[in-house]
Amino acid sequence: MSSENTHDKNFVKNNQIGVTGRKIIYDEDGKPCRSCNTLLDFQMVTGKISSTATPGHTSKSLAQSNQTLLFNKQDPPDVEELGKSTWTFLHSVAAKYPQTPNKEQQGDMKNFINIFSKIYPCTWCADDFKDYLEQNAPKVGSRDELGKWFCEAHNEVNVKLGKEKFDCNLWKKRWKDGWE
Amino acid sequence: MSSENTHDKNFVKNNQIGVTGRKIIYDEDGKPCRSCNTLLDFQMVTGKISSTATPGHTSKSLAQSNQTLLFNKQDPPDVEELGKSTWTFLHSVAAKYPQTPNKEQQGDMKNFINIFSKIYPCTWCADDFKDYLEQNAPKVGSRDELGKWFCEAHNEVNVKLGKEKFDCNLWKKRWKDGWE
Repeated sequence: MSSENTHDKNFVKNNQIGVTGRKIIYDEDGKPCRSCNTLLDFQMVTGKISSTATPGHTSKSLAQSNQTLLFNKQDPPDVEELGKSTWTFLHSVAAKYPQTPNKEQQGDMKNFINIFSKIYPCTWCADDFKDYLEQNAPKVGSRDELGKWFCEAHNEVNVKLGKEKFDCNLWKKRWKDGWE
Repeated sequence: MSSENTHDKNFVKNNQIGVTGRKIIYDEDGKPCRSCNTLLDFQMVTGKISSTATPGHTSKSLAQSNQTLLFNKQDPPDVEELGKSTWTFLHSVAAKYPQTPNKEQQGDMKNFINIFSKIYPCTWCADDFKDYLEQNAPKVGSRDELGKWFCEAHNEVNVKLGKEKFDCNLWKKRWKDGWE
């Protein structure tokens, strides 16, 4: 088999590639990064499920994980849940940003985005976002500008993840006014 | 009927109290604040559903709203979805915060929380949080401190909303390590 076949079982056993086909991300301490990987991949690499498990198929230990959820012991979010939640927060922040922000508000928003790029819990996501910021300084002059800026930043991530782009002309309906 | 009966139909008709019994929150421009109210209340006060509608019962226009959702036109988040998403983001940030942060990281976290309290899209929520910050300065000395601080801040909101408190001894399992 070609060494570039990311579904090669040897790659899986060496804990480089998860069951979803994504590369496993590790923290500086050598442990798998919980908030950087999908739940399924994290469970596989930490030995909770078999590496031959496929999405949609449950194994005994995954069923046990589900059991604990029934007792309301929710697990930490995986990279997808973290991403979805964070975009909901960010777009909502932009939707409430003033149309004519003062200097303080503009400065605050620039700082907020800058610090955000340093503290976002998924390390590879944050690094990508820092790179994006170097090429695309945040537009904080008005709500419309900021909304468009976040929409485009989000679309860059969508493309990277193989998802559809969102039509930024619809950003206001999606995040502020609704569709009526 | 007592004028303090928040379920008085006159209160509902004057658009002061929503179908959920919560007070309707308005923006400075006099329009209902989308991200400050629950979806049901927002739809009632903007005339999308009848004020005699009760949670769990759908009217024709609510069904129409659901129809547009099927076309993947998601509505802006209501206060509950916004809150849930934001807590997921914040607790995850704290879970990834270093156990021994340097001066810059500590300063960044303090600034981040301060700016957050100004830009959070639900105005009454943000005002409450600013009050909380005045009495409870963020503890940014370590991950454990910060996690505990966010947990306690979240519990203050839980109590305010009539929800159960979360046991902060379990914060690390819930947001960082899981339950195994």
